[in-house]
Amino acid sequence: MSEAQDRSASFAQGLDLIQRLGGAERPAVLDLFASIGEAEFGEQCVGFIYGDVYHRPGLPLPERQLVTVAALTALGYAGSQLGFHAKAALTVGCDRRQLVETVIQVSSFAGFPATLNALAELKTLFESLPAEAPPSGAPADVPWAGIEDRYERGLAAMKAVDGEAGEKVVAALADIAPDLATSIIEFTFGELYTRPGLSLRHREIVTVAACVALGTALPQLKVHIHGLLNVGGSEQDVIETILHLAFYCGFPAALNAIAAAREVFAQR
Amino acid sequence: MSEAQDRSASFAQGLDLIQRLGGAERPAVLDLFASIGEAEFGEQCVGFIYGDVYHRPGLPLPERQLVTVAALTALGYAGSQLGFHAKAALTVGCDRRQLVETVIQVSSFAGFPATLNALAELKTLFESLPAEAPPSGAPADVPWAGIEDRYERGLAAMKAVDGEAGEKVVAALADIAPDLATSIIEFTFGELYTRPGLSLRHREIVTVAACVALGTALPQLKVHIHGLLNVGGSEQDVIETILHLAFYCGFPAALNAIAAAREVFAQR
Amino acid sequence: MSEAQDRSASFAQGLDLIQRLGGAERPAVLDLFASIGEAEFGEQCVGFIYGDVYHRPGLPLPERQLVTVAALTALGYAGSQLGFHAKAALTVGCDRRQLVETVIQVSSFAGFPATLNALAELKTLFESLPAEAPPSGAPADVPWAGIEDRYERGLAAMKAVDGEAGEKVVAALADIAPDLATSIIEFTFGELYTRPGLSLRHREIVTVAACVALGTALPQLKVHIHGLLNVGGSEQDVIETILHLAFYCGFPAALNAIAAAREVFAQR
Repeated sequence: MSEAQDRSASFAQGLDLIQRLGGAERPAVLDLFASIGEAEFGEQCVGFIYGDVYHRPGLPLPERQLVTVAALTALGYAGSQLGFHAKAALTVGCDRRQLVETVIQVSSFAGFPATLNALAELKTLFESLPAEAPPSGAPADVPWAGIEDRYERGLAAMKAVDGEAGEKVVAALADIAPDLATSIIEFTFGELYTRPGLSLRHREIVTVAACVALGTALPQLKVHIHGLLNVGGSEQDVIETILHLAFYCGFPAALNAIAAAREVFAQR
Repeated sequence: MSEAQDRSASFAQGLDLIQRLGGAERPAVLDLFASIGEAEFGEQCVGFIYGDVYHRPGLPLPERQLVTVAALTALGYAGSQLGFHAKAALTVGCDRRQLVETVIQVSSFAGFPATLNALAELKTLFESLPAEAPPSGAPADVPWAGIEDRYERGLAAMKAVDGEAGEKVVAALADIAPDLATSIIEFTFGELYTRPGLSLRHREIVTVAACVALGTALPQLKVHIHGLLNVGGSEQDVIETILHLAFYCGFPAALNAIAAAREVFAQR
Repeated sequence: MSEAQDRSASFAQGLDLIQRLGGAERPAVLDLFASIGEAEFGEQCVGFIYGDVYHRPGLPLPERQLVTVAALTALGYAGSQLGFHAKAALTVGCDRRQLVETVIQVSSFAGFPATLNALAELKTLFESLPAEAPPSGAPADVPWAGIEDRYERGLAAMKAVDGEAGEKVVAALADIAPDLATSIIEFTFGELYTRPGLSLRHREIVTVAACVALGTALPQLKVHIHGLLNVGGSEQDVIETILHLAFYCGFPAALNAIAAAREVFAQR
């Protein structure tokens, strides 16, 4: 196939997907590019991202949407894109609970302002849609959810997810800010990781996505790449998530994240 | 006390504070969580943050509000939260001058776009309130304010605040970008640190907050942790500020800041 | 001249420039400062930035506007400032094509959400102006534009711009994420660096600006400082760009970028 045919096939495949994701015949992003005289570049991007990247094996479409929503939440300024991708997530089979959990999970990594901005987008989206049937199926398995004491519960969760890496973080705080360690155990692990609406693998994959998007959380990215692998994720999950996010957070963020992944993979 | 009682006490204490901070019976943040089906998690967060963290000793409420405003300014995308916390700052005893100074101080660390976005929020807030009585009390003591020459004035301020750390920054620029050093001395120190509306300790505490929020300014965070300690701040000020900000900027930002603080404390 | 006279001269020069850049007798930024009781500080800033920094030799006014637009795009949250500086860029001789190219170039470094936000600002700006005559003059020379195969074309572009540094990035990905390298070669270099509307020197200067603004892309900043020098830029271009951006991204971002520049200059 010539490159022109390649491109045309990529664009056709991308247009088809973005129409499905956005539920609209004419994607707004193509109109935006056309309005500044760049209709052709807009089509190239749709071909490249939605035609090629989104169709790569190794990360199913619903997971691509969750990592996109997590990254857009962490960026803080991407409300309009978040509205689009949250709706797209529902279209490809995520439920509202997973979206809410994803955005809430990011609060521990990017802070509450980022999460509140994203929740406001979810609110607007949910209000625009007909009421959802209550989630069906069993809630995600969270083995420590039954531990009554929040600190003990958080400790169990941290141990299961982060393993030694989490314990090292806590130990390093003992002499200088032990209460920060307590907050992490009680809030992040005792509250967030107890919640049943998102599988642990998904919880870690969106955490990795948030850390990639922040760009300032490389030590924590490493801890949670370990975490993702500890709860059943694969190295391919890590790599595909990072590659996907290059288009949402930039190639430098992706390259720095790959360097972190390389270190983690070598340690295991 | 059982955990359920603990939580209920934390939430009652948090609700009381957030009602006072926001001047409203029903905090908007609880409505937001309720609107996406997370009323209970919203209450947990209010309990955790406003019930527990805000009541920790070591950082009085007005200072918590100034560091929150500084961090939200530096984030750049948190205008709606900034409006809330700026108003709360006034409620707990900060004056408008301190808010304006905090936002202006951040310009040197996060740049003018972040500061201009925050000033627009302050403008809206101030216009919604009755005129404030002119600030009473003596203005903050700024010993070098009387030095007429801006460069000399900035040099004196930098020496007093940053000590050797500042001089090293300037020396390191001598062979490659001496005019950047001059800008820092003349603008940051000659203009900003001369302004009387914020005590030096507050100026440094909000600078630390801005650097924590940025996440990309770890070398400068260290310089200004030194600075805060040089102008009468304590190690506890540093630790409490960082712990407080974990909820606004995320735990990775807090953890990386603690690592910076550890280095600085060890050097002194 | 006394400092008071200095300042008055700087402000007069700055006011003159900002009036010209913004096309308005009364700059909105002065009104914003006045509205919060800081008319005098607003005038100091206009004097310092538009009176002094913008008049420094080494970076002509149109290039200052392109680097400003690139940095504001990468920040993601600075839409209102971006609208002002994009219009100012047109006023001082940039054409719309250069603005669009600058914003598109940043997509590879800060991600598409940042670029889409900025394109929406450009759309609003362009719609508010009379139609522009089609760009005159020859398009920028892009020697590899004629290579038909996208991968081959991207490889040629990467080699010419980044030299060895680019090859090292690709080699480092070979065993862990070769497809990320392919994306960089095909998208960043094969698509973006093929576009004729921006000279290669300008393309690299705005890339440097985006990396400075991000603050999280120091390894990539070094690669593209090499890149700027490889395509005919000077060390002064690098230094002036960084110094200029201190006021848009903060002095910490500028200081960290200077440290990166020092390393690159020493290597050559």
